[in-house]
Order: sequence, then C-alpha cells, then structure tokens
Amino acid sequence: MSSTHKLYAYLHEEILPLESAYLHVSDLSIQRGYGIFDFFKTLNGQPLFLEEYLNRFYASALLMGLQVPLSEEELTATLTQLIQMNGLIDSGVKMILTGGYSANGYDPGPPNLIILQQPLTMPSEAQLATGIKVITHDYVRELAAAKTINYTVGIRLIQQIKAKGADDVLYHQNGVVSEFPRSNFFLVKEDGTLVTPAREILHGVTRKNVLELARKKYKVEEGTITLEDIAQAKEAFMTSTTKRILPIVEVDGKSVGNGKPGTVSLDLLQDLIALEEAQIRAL
Amino acid sequence: MSSTHKLYAYLHEEILPLESAYLHVSDLSIQRGYGIFDFFKTLNGQPLFLEEYLNRFYASALLMGLQVPLSEEELTATLTQLIQMNGLIDSGVKMILTGGYSANGYDPGPPNLIILQQPLTMPSEAQLATGIKVITHDYVRELAAAKTINYTVGIRLIQQIKAKGADDVLYHQNGVVSEFPRSNFFLVKEDGTLVTPAREILHGVTRKNVLELARKKYKVEEGTITLEDIAQAKEAFMTSTTKRILPIVEVDGKSVGNGKPGTVSLDLLQDLIALEEAQIRAL
Repeated sequence: MSSTHKLYAYLHEEILPLESAYLHVSDLSIQRGYGIFDFFKTLNGQPLFLEEYLNRFYASALLMGLQVPLSEEELTATLTQLIQMNGLIDSGVKMILTGGYSANGYDPGPPNLIILQQPLTMPSEAQLATGIKVITHDYVRELAAAKTINYTVGIRLIQQIKAKGADDVLYHQNGVVSEFPRSNFFLVKEDGTLVTPAREILHGVTRKNVLELARKKYKVEEGTITLEDIAQAKEAFMTSTTKRILPIVEVDGKSVGNGKPGTVSLDLLQDLIALEEAQIRAL
Repeated sequence: MSSTHKLYAYLHEEILPLESAYLHVSDLSIQRGYGIFDFFKTLNGQPLFLEEYLNRFYASALLMGLQVPLSEEELTATLTQLIQMNGLIDSGVKMILTGGYSANGYDPGPPNLIILQQPLTMPSEAQLATGIKVITHDYVRELAAAKTINYTVGIRLIQQIKAKGADDVLYHQNGVVSEFPRSNFFLVKEDGTLVTPAREILHGVTRKNVLELARKKYKVEEGTITLEDIAQAKEAFMTSTTKRILPIVEVDGKSVGNGKPGTVSLDLLQDLIALEEAQIRAL
C-alpha cells in the first residue's frame, strides 16, 4: 500500500481517515471474536459483482443474529462515496460487522459496521506460471455458510505452512475436502470433469462465476472430493476474489497431475478475466 | 457496574481511562477474531490463584503462536498497579492478547495486550437456591486447550437459550459431553461418584480446585460423560471463576435427579468458598 495515498474508512456512521478508525475494546470482535465480513474488489474504480457480495454480507449477518445498520441502498451509497474519496483504481473493499459494544463482554450490542479499502494485490505472473503448493489439515469451519471473522485455525497454521515451504492450507474432514481458509477448491479429473466441493464451504462469488463459465465448455460437478481424488487428478486450482483462479501444483508434497499449471485452469482464468472486463464495460 | 466509579484499563503499554481504550480496526481480533484471553477474580482487592491463571494465559499464547509482550513479573506488577488504581473490592480482571495490528489483514503483527477490570457479578442466592436450566448443542471447541476469544457458536446460541427458557448451553459431540462456553461440567452419579469430562475442555482453575476439594471426601473421576449419563445422575453442576459452583437442575427440559440443587454440589460450594477465603487470608 502506498504510504503517500491517504485512505479513508467508514466507521460509526461517518467516513474518516483510516488512521483514525478505532473501536473501543468492549467491542465483541475483540472480546469474543464475534463478527462477520465480506470482501469485493474494484477494477478501474468499479465494484465487481457487488450485488452478490452484498447479498452474502446480509445473509451472513442474518445467520449470526446481527443486523446491518444500513439498508442495502444506504450501504451501496456509502460504498460509492468511500470508493470515490479513496480514488484507488484496483482495490479490495472489506465490510466488517461486529457484535458491537458489549456491556458485559458477552451479550451483543448494536453492531459496529466498518468499511475499509486497500490497493489490490493480485497473484503475480510468476505465481500463475509456477502454480502454488499447499498442505492439508483436518478441520471444517464452524457455520461454514456464514462468512464469520473466525480464522483461529487458518492463522494459527501460517507458521506450519511456511515451515513446509507451502503457500496455503486445504481443509478436509476425515479425508473429505472442503475449502481453503480464504478460497474455494476445484479439481479436474482424469476424464476432464471439473469438480468442486458442494458442502461445508463458503459459497464464493468467484466459485459461482467459474462454475457458470466452466459449464459452457466442460462437464461440471458440485460434489464430494476426497484426498485420494486429488492424487488421481489432472489439475487442481483455487478460486477467490483476489486470486481469481490460481493453479495448485502440489498437495502435501505430492505433484498434482504433471506438476504444472493445467490447461483447463489457465483457460478458465482467461474466461474469468474476460467476464470481469465485460462487467466493467457494462457498468 | 457503577457509573460513578471511574475505571482504568491497560493498553499500548500504559494505564489509561477505560473509556479511552481503543484498538485500531487493523487489529487481528477485529479482522479475523484472532486472540486469546484469561480472566481471574479479586476478592477484598486480592487476586485469587493468580499464578495459575497467568500460567494458562502464557500457555494459550504459546498454543496460538502469540508472544505476551510482558514477562510474568512485569505483567504481575502491571496488574497490581491497575488493581490498586481501580480500587474495586470484588472484581473480575480480563487480560486479552490479540494477533496485533496486521499489515494485510491476515498475518499477525506484534500482539496487543489489553487488561480490563470490572466489578464482579456472582450468582445470586436465588440462583443458588433454585439452580439453573441448560440446553445442549452438538459442538466441540477448536483447540479446546487454548482459551481463545472464539465464541462464535456460544454467542450465536444466546437467542436459542433464551427462547427455551434456559440459562446456558452444554456442548457435546455425538452425545459425549465436554463443557459450557464459559464453564466446566460436573456430574454426581447415583453411587455418589463425581465425574467431569477429561478431554476437549478448557482446564478451568475452579475445576481443578473443585477436583482437589472433592477428592478429600468423595470418589472422583476425570473421564467421559454422555448425555445418557446425565439422565441417570443424582446431581449436576457447572464450575467457573465467577460462578464458583452453580447447580444444574434441568438439561434439555428433563430434571436432573430430583430437580433441586444437590447436597454434594452445595457442600462442595461451601468448601470452595472456604478455600478462597483461606487464600485471601494467606496473601
């Protein structure tokens, strides 16, 4: 992030300098890790697939018994104003809704809404050319359908990922794969079929877009993937808002397919970039 | 809490008015619910069993890869000073250690240490006389041995607990009981043996004290408790720093034993109060 570019944030019903955005320590995110969030990107200053991210944000809030203090219309207007003030070309916008200031450190208060915007870091050409390595860990997220702020397990594993020379960690439960801490998982089978886990996952907007694009060209399944399926796969990749499609070439030290980013993965990435560009032109 | 009593807190290496204790929104507790904490009480202005709580606090930090910025000696001196300035007679002291200010909203920074003190609310005579009702929920805490700030499931269940006219929720996994969100669980079997779950629990300081007191008078087991065991039990109670021993008279709408606080529960409560008083006299 550029230190010369002054950034603004939204908190406590006002847009204020990011450096002044503070929460009192009685907030339930600090006291009890209680909150939800969502994250979308802007390209050329335009939010992409905003409605879907907003829908998921309100859905997560509902699942966690939190009320977003702004209507979808008010929130959109606030986002537009903030994005305009920050003047970033390509960015990530994060909305966090916490359990609010709690009188007793346990019962929620009126939720605090925070909106932050940062320059966007996308995967480098080098990362796309070589693909990434991942390890696996037996874990399934609590309330996987809600985008909660609980990353206790994922962040605790950062040291272990680094120690093993890997880039991320893939969760599975008794061998049944779900997702990455911040990305969805796809696999291309020997017969060319694309598969992605259907259950115990966050429903990524990029996952949904990739599924739609893939269905035009390939056989596609939302189903069950086991660790053994990965050993037999031709290709694997992750999807997320910031990563788009990122090829996975190694899982737990074993090569996926021929150990190089696959042609289906890179083909779908081109389709996804084209879809994003079409979205921006349409706005 | 009395609104006329001005309270102080510790944050960013200084003692400051509680009302001025704010964290920047880049803190990893707000961004990703990442942090640990511990909580002890003072009676007559004296911390009780402080060393055990401090040991657990440092152990939780280690389990989560966080370094407490103060040595145990420095932390004790800071606690002493804060307790003196606040001048509360009976209080609860909470130490929170967060993942710190994160540059990218995911990787931890230098941890932020927060210390808060509040007047203590103990169970009322009425609660002790009638006991409490609880519901059950299939869930086991992630990293149960660490006192993390992750209460996603417990807080989400508050509405359900209230809707069922209950006071708390007991976690079990496939019928095997572990703990409450903030308390340990004990049961008195038909033959008078005390049992408390041994695994997938936070090792409560009050739990440990109660086990030691109980071993002087009763047969005691740290083992496995199932939901069926509760149906056969004579008594049940929870233990915690603030609750001490609180009798449980109903689980999922079914009476425990004769539906009244049990004699063993109340006998051990007297022993625990005596132990606490002896501690204070010894300080």
